[in-house]
Amino acid sequence: MGERLIVIGGCAAGMSAASKARRMDPQMEILTYERTGFVSYGECGLPYYISGVVKDHNDLVVRTPEQFAEQNIEVHLHHEVTEIDAENRRVRVEDLQSGGSRDEHYDKLLIATGGRPTLLPGLSSGAIEGVFVLRSVEDGIAIRRFIRERGPRQAAIVGGGYIGLELAESFHTLGLETTLIEWMPQVLIRFDPEMAQLVQEELEGQGVRLALGAKVEGLEADSSGQVRQVVSSQGRFKADLVLLALGVRPNVELAREAGVALGETGAIAVDAEMRTDLPEVFAAGDCAEAYHRISNRPAYIPLGTTANKQGRVAGTNIAGGEAEFAGIVGTAITQVFGLQAGMTGLAEREAKEQGYAVKAVRIKSRSRAHYYPGGKPLHIKLIFEEQSGRLLGGQIVGGEGVNGRIGVLAAALHRGMTIEELAQLDLAYVPPLAPVWDPLLVAANVALKG
Amino acid sequence: MGERLIVIGGCAAGMSAASKARRMDPQMEILTYERTGFVSYGECGLPYYISGVVKDHNDLVVRTPEQFAEQNIEVHLHHEVTEIDAENRRVRVEDLQSGGSRDEHYDKLLIATGGRPTLLPGLSSGAIEGVFVLRSVEDGIAIRRFIRERGPRQAAIVGGGYIGLELAESFHTLGLETTLIEWMPQVLIRFDPEMAQLVQEELEGQGVRLALGAKVEGLEADSSGQVRQVVSSQGRFKADLVLLALGVRPNVELAREAGVALGETGAIAVDAEMRTDLPEVFAAGDCAEAYHRISNRPAYIPLGTTANKQGRVAGTNIAGGEAEFAGIVGTAITQVFGLQAGMTGLAEREAKEQGYAVKAVRIKSRSRAHYYPGGKPLHIKLIFEEQSGRLLGGQIVGGEGVNGRIGVLAAALHRGMTIEELAQLDLAYVPPLAPVWDPLLVAANVALKG
Repeated sequence: MGERLIVIGGCAAGMSAASKARRMDPQMEILTYERTGFVSYGECGLPYYISGVVKDHNDLVVRTPEQFAEQNIEVHLHHEVTEIDAENRRVRVEDLQSGGSRDEHYDKLLIATGGRPTLLPGLSSGAIEGVFVLRSVEDGIAIRRFIRERGPRQAAIVGGGYIGLELAESFHTLGLETTLIEWMPQVLIRFDPEMAQLVQEELEGQGVRLALGAKVEGLEADSSGQVRQVVSSQGRFKADLVLLALGVRPNVELAREAGVALGETGAIAVDAEMRTDLPEVFAAGDCAEAYHRISNRPAYIPLGTTANKQGRVAGTNIAGGEAEFAGIVGTAITQVFGLQAGMTGLAEREAKEQGYAVKAVRIKSRSRAHYYPGGKPLHIKLIFEEQSGRLLGGQIVGGEGVNGRIGVLAAALHRGMTIEELAQLDLAYVPPLAPVWDPLLVAANVALKG
Repeated sequence: MGERLIVIGGCAAGMSAASKARRMDPQMEILTYERTGFVSYGECGLPYYISGVVKDHNDLVVRTPEQFAEQNIEVHLHHEVTEIDAENRRVRVEDLQSGGSRDEHYDKLLIATGGRPTLLPGLSSGAIEGVFVLRSVEDGIAIRRFIRERGPRQAAIVGGGYIGLELAESFHTLGLETTLIEWMPQVLIRFDPEMAQLVQEELEGQGVRLALGAKVEGLEADSSGQVRQVVSSQGRFKADLVLLALGVRPNVELAREAGVALGETGAIAVDAEMRTDLPEVFAAGDCAEAYHRISNRPAYIPLGTTANKQGRVAGTNIAGGEAEFAGIVGTAITQVFGLQAGMTGLAEREAKEQGYAVKAVRIKSRSRAHYYPGGKPLHIKLIFEEQSGRLLGGQIVGGEGVNGRIGVLAAALHRGMTIEELAQLDLAYVPPLAPVWDPLLVAANVALKG
């Protein structure tokens, strides 16, 4: 028998690490403890499960516990690790179904406790009926069941991030009158306001009501305990379904109590090998920080892409291999109705906050050759350093062709390209898929003139 | 009055240069001579004009001669430059409509004579009715008129490059029984055979007949001079419409006679500023070479993207500015029926020919999260240097999401990234547009295992 790895949390990072460790070391004993009833599922697919685009929640599962068992990875569902004793390399595990608990020894420990939804102050989850968060498969099942069984007519979403926007589309698609309430003056707060504006126009154009700059002060229920209204600084919004999508915070209590150091973002501090400051204790995924290659600082941008990569790196090092996580450049994308909105690097505001002498250009181009039918407007913003011309970030909003172009910018950022280099890239062209001057090149050329 | 620029050829490179020179120098006198009746049009749109996807050939025009006139750029249609006297900085211009000719002085000269279709040995163009090439708007108009007026039933395309494939789709869409004849054993000769195979399957699946490895020996006409059959090494193919799409050769006769040096590819040799070896004589576009950043040699890969960039660089330098063309990495893409096929860098065969110790991996992934409906298979091949892991090329074939991913690889190639760096890229993810492990990352990870 080899060394024993305990993985706390069956999310993407945890299971990615477990699989990688297993592939590298067939002897290692690998145990995973997961609080919920599901591991290794496509969390980002939950909005599409709620809308019915994905029929069955089991479709979201990448790999079942049985499949992990075939790989000789033990998955314990409904088990919560409640204590880490780093000195003696033991964890205390509670069986949430039987109520029993036990201590387990580890040689290597991976903390992959993920994130959890931010709640409204004073609102304890489940206190009012019809109020939900969306994080686990169970959350998704509960929301879908609530809609089917209770037939709500009016939905309010609190929070205009990715999940909030995607659920606005889901609810609207299901025929609910939907209001999106965001306390900032814009949705997608990592985007610059004029780019977020395009998304706001799409939401309103599709019939979603927006309440921006509105602070939620409370929820009101009827006598049966069912939510009826959201009370906000901009008045009351009727709602018999409320989704709280206020963002994700790292689940770090367990780690903190064990003495694991947290970083400046509040998430677990890790090095490039995904090691925490405690020996043989690793962390990865939405509970951990990630080094941001453009700001040159740790960042907390919890996304599945990062979680998977970090898990893989952690798994490699846990199994005695050598891997380093190269860090992120802050890439993210969402699709809302007919619009895709992607960003990478720093937003203009962020770049200024970090002290860069920033220039930015914004262009409107098209996704196809001008004469090819079906082309859609494509808005591109590039943020770059004034003196050096080094690209600092990019944002793209449009009806098609956003994802790949964000990838091009992400690759450019990864290597610190200038807008001059960007303008010279040998990008592909065929009339149904791009204009002969790719919109990215147009934007870079406009930036060069500046 | 400023200096006088004469541009020979009103193609993308020529007009891009003229416009750029004008923007930089309002005083310069700029004259363009163009043999055909059109300048500045989307040549790559011609297959879609023939199929009727583009209704009017005027839609292909980016800018009319009148619009150039407003910019104070003189465009002389139906004028051919027949001689360059580099010593005295004069060109001889023939007015093809009146038959007159005259000498014109230049201070700067740009040769943008483009390319011309390769013909079958022994076949003089126009000798047989129903036989066409597709290069100019006039060619497109003639083909579309022929189809409308003569109602051909069976089309044969000789040549399985981009134009050949796109026209196979156009003809098939118009209801013609279509045969594609290619003397090599595969279509898209720059692609590796197993990737081209996917495109061949799509063509055949859609009902296009393929004759690969078939040498065309001649064309047979009926007594009225109308083509009836293509005679090939694999037998005879009935055809009352034949399109010769055998590739493009650089139009260099005029330049060669003037003493301009040609490069090893047979196209005009240029430096990074797009200067030829003669003083004040520049060349750009499909008549010129381009430096290939991966093979580190001049290449002849005539494409609109390169022509436009080269024209812009030439225009900048002609007007006294400073610009250098960074070269190409060999990017190209086509769409055939439901399939997109893109490549960048070197194919495996090419890389081996150039002496690299080559490794290659091929994966099949999907364009969307596994649970999101409508996803399509995405085949990716990566070619890289064995020792260093440096990426040398990539090919992608799939139903969607090809263009942007080729762009990511092109950016990676531009900067000489390794597959290890590629595997670390912070690419975007949202279920309708990508799996959480982007197919490019999957391919890079498989390559790393290799």
